[in-house]
Amino acid sequence: MQKLMDLASLGAIDGGGCARLALTDEDAAGRDLVVGWMHELGLTVTTDVIGNVVGTWNVGSGAPVMTGSHIDTVRTGGKYDGNLGVLSGLEVIATLQEANYIPVRPISVGFFTNEEGSRFAPDMLGSLVYVGGMPVEEALDIIGIDGARVGDELERIGYNGATPCPGFAPHAFVEFHIEQGPVLERTNVRVGAVNGVQGISWQEITITGQSNHAGTTPMSMRKDPSFVAAKIAVFLRDLADRYSGHQVCTVGKLDLFPNLVNVIPAKAIMTLDVRNTDELLLSQAEAEIAAFLRSIAIAEDVEISTRYLARFEPVEFNSQVIDIIENVASTFTQPVSRMPSGAGHDAQMFARVCPSAMIFVPSVDGISHNPAEYTAPEDLIMGTDILLQVLLQLSNIEEFAQ
Amino acid sequence: MQKLMDLASLGAIDGGGCARLALTDEDAAGRDLVVGWMHELGLTVTTDVIGNVVGTWNVGSGAPVMTGSHIDTVRTGGKYDGNLGVLSGLEVIATLQEANYIPVRPISVGFFTNEEGSRFAPDMLGSLVYVGGMPVEEALDIIGIDGARVGDELERIGYNGATPCPGFAPHAFVEFHIEQGPVLERTNVRVGAVNGVQGISWQEITITGQSNHAGTTPMSMRKDPSFVAAKIAVFLRDLADRYSGHQVCTVGKLDLFPNLVNVIPAKAIMTLDVRNTDELLLSQAEAEIAAFLRSIAIAEDVEISTRYLARFEPVEFNSQVIDIIENVASTFTQPVSRMPSGAGHDAQMFARVCPSAMIFVPSVDGISHNPAEYTAPEDLIMGTDILLQVLLQLSNIEEFAQ
Repeated sequence: MQKLMDLASLGAIDGGGCARLALTDEDAAGRDLVVGWMHELGLTVTTDVIGNVVGTWNVGSGAPVMTGSHIDTVRTGGKYDGNLGVLSGLEVIATLQEANYIPVRPISVGFFTNEEGSRFAPDMLGSLVYVGGMPVEEALDIIGIDGARVGDELERIGYNGATPCPGFAPHAFVEFHIEQGPVLERTNVRVGAVNGVQGISWQEITITGQSNHAGTTPMSMRKDPSFVAAKIAVFLRDLADRYSGHQVCTVGKLDLFPNLVNVIPAKAIMTLDVRNTDELLLSQAEAEIAAFLRSIAIAEDVEISTRYLARFEPVEFNSQVIDIIENVASTFTQPVSRMPSGAGHDAQMFARVCPSAMIFVPSVDGISHNPAEYTAPEDLIMGTDILLQVLLQLSNIEEFAQ
Repeated sequence: MQKLMDLASLGAIDGGGCARLALTDEDAAGRDLVVGWMHELGLTVTTDVIGNVVGTWNVGSGAPVMTGSHIDTVRTGGKYDGNLGVLSGLEVIATLQEANYIPVRPISVGFFTNEEGSRFAPDMLGSLVYVGGMPVEEALDIIGIDGARVGDELERIGYNGATPCPGFAPHAFVEFHIEQGPVLERTNVRVGAVNGVQGISWQEITITGQSNHAGTTPMSMRKDPSFVAAKIAVFLRDLADRYSGHQVCTVGKLDLFPNLVNVIPAKAIMTLDVRNTDELLLSQAEAEIAAFLRSIAIAEDVEISTRYLARFEPVEFNSQVIDIIENVASTFTQPVSRMPSGAGHDAQMFARVCPSAMIFVPSVDGISHNPAEYTAPEDLIMGTDILLQVLLQLSNIEEFAQ
């Protein structure tokens, strides 16, 4: 708890939150603090070429089990998102050391560069490069929202390490994280055994019509992008209702041009955020949306163009790891929910190279990416206790079933 | 024609249009140019406390007949909207002076502050204050979309005049304007004798929900202002279709906060522009909208507040003035249409204090509030010739029938 508060004091913002955008001075200060703690625990600390830092307690033998997350934040971030997953890993090692308990395998704790994606796109960049999902050179050349280059910023803050990427494949990977959503709290469940991550489809829709006077243009002669945008948003909600289950759809961004009370807009630009845990349903939703856009463009005599901003397939975590989490958690609290994550996490990258899963604890009011983000200390502590047992059980497994 | 082009060069924007929002530097430059032309014609120029400028050719006797319009524009305005009505008035005086023709009464040409309402609400502010429809102090305290105060901006650009409001009541008022709609062109008529103006209802709707993560918040737990705004826009179109006739409805402005692809907005602010020539139908539409807002606020668990930005009842112009316009116009072209205006105009304010009406000429493709706004020069010229004859006939009338 104290380490969470100490880390949150770096880049502190009004309302009790943090702003430590990736590779800024604030992020560097956070990194230095955590690396110092790793050294205090006697860990072997490596920094790789994309700035991921892994501290390993070199005991036992074989490939380490790994835990970790990220310590960068969004511009209006909270204290827990990411940070919890890194500091709880250090707490597990400290606890085992104090108890003189030597696990079967080494334990590694990592923090991964630019998970949030608030400064550099894409998000989850460090873990993506770690698992070989993007060439290092391409990642180093990414330019941020402020014009800065990843490679230059890594060098500037002294986190351009020598350890190559892709990095070693852990024996298994578990990430402990706050839910960032309201489901656990609303269902009165204290722990989630996360069985996968929703697939994400982000589209930007540009609707071009005919700007005209709002008073003198009869309804029948309009080509109104504002109305078409509204129809698309209503269609999207209807689609989410029809699919139900884990389908979510959001219009978070919409801009009208010129955006004046008495002018039928010339253009509307909107984003569609569509997510599902099932790739088949996600693709089907995209196809339905495309068909609707074609039909409404004809019906309302407007032009519609679309551009993908992001597209990730759903990720399924390893069922053996999920079972271990569920079983361990059940000894602390019942019931435990098997649930998907609505947000992206570093664990989904590690799922490409080793058995992986996640542990969730509730977010009060489902609030995250906000200084008001909060999880009760007893949930943080119980989750860390669960993480400890899960890491030990994973350490005991010789080989995972395929 | 040259004066129209010269005025359009101030605040010129791509595509041949103008951006001279009320009381900006661009508007000030336009005012200075037109005031210069008034002085060249030897007019007595007065600026009143709300920045309305009236140039009077002090010949003959009695209350002046007045013409005029506005020279502010929307952000993406054309060359003709408003400007035509001011510059044609100056052209009439220049023509009479060249012909050494002395009318029975003085002729005044005015331009009125913030007709468009694009920067300050309500629109037609200057003429409203001129006729005593709003106290001066209240008008000066209006805050614009950019946070600027009318009174401060008038002072800043040097148009905080000394002439009091309400101003003198003219003998009669005629405004020459482009139609800004497609009706004349579609019916192949070159001149409209405008018999009234649609009533206007402008509301700003603020929808407050709950900002949340677009991925982790199940559809059933959302309070999504973006979706509610879309439902309102679709309801509004449906209402317009049901009412048909002269009913028009527009959502021209919509802002989401924080307006990010992966965040359910905390708030949406939108405008509703609703117009009808029939006050009963307009009131009925407002009542239907209010009922819909109440029901959707409950259904979607959001808070909705509304604020009127403008509300004008439909206006009927003076039948004697309409007859004169129709008769004069018929000597130039046939047929002439008696028609309502879909847009608000300064003439509707003067209708409160003196016999008033308007002359319309066609807008190509009905386009206005757009750089592509265009009216054929022969129509502009013919309309100005009609305006001259109408002003002289009005000047000759001793007393209007009630």
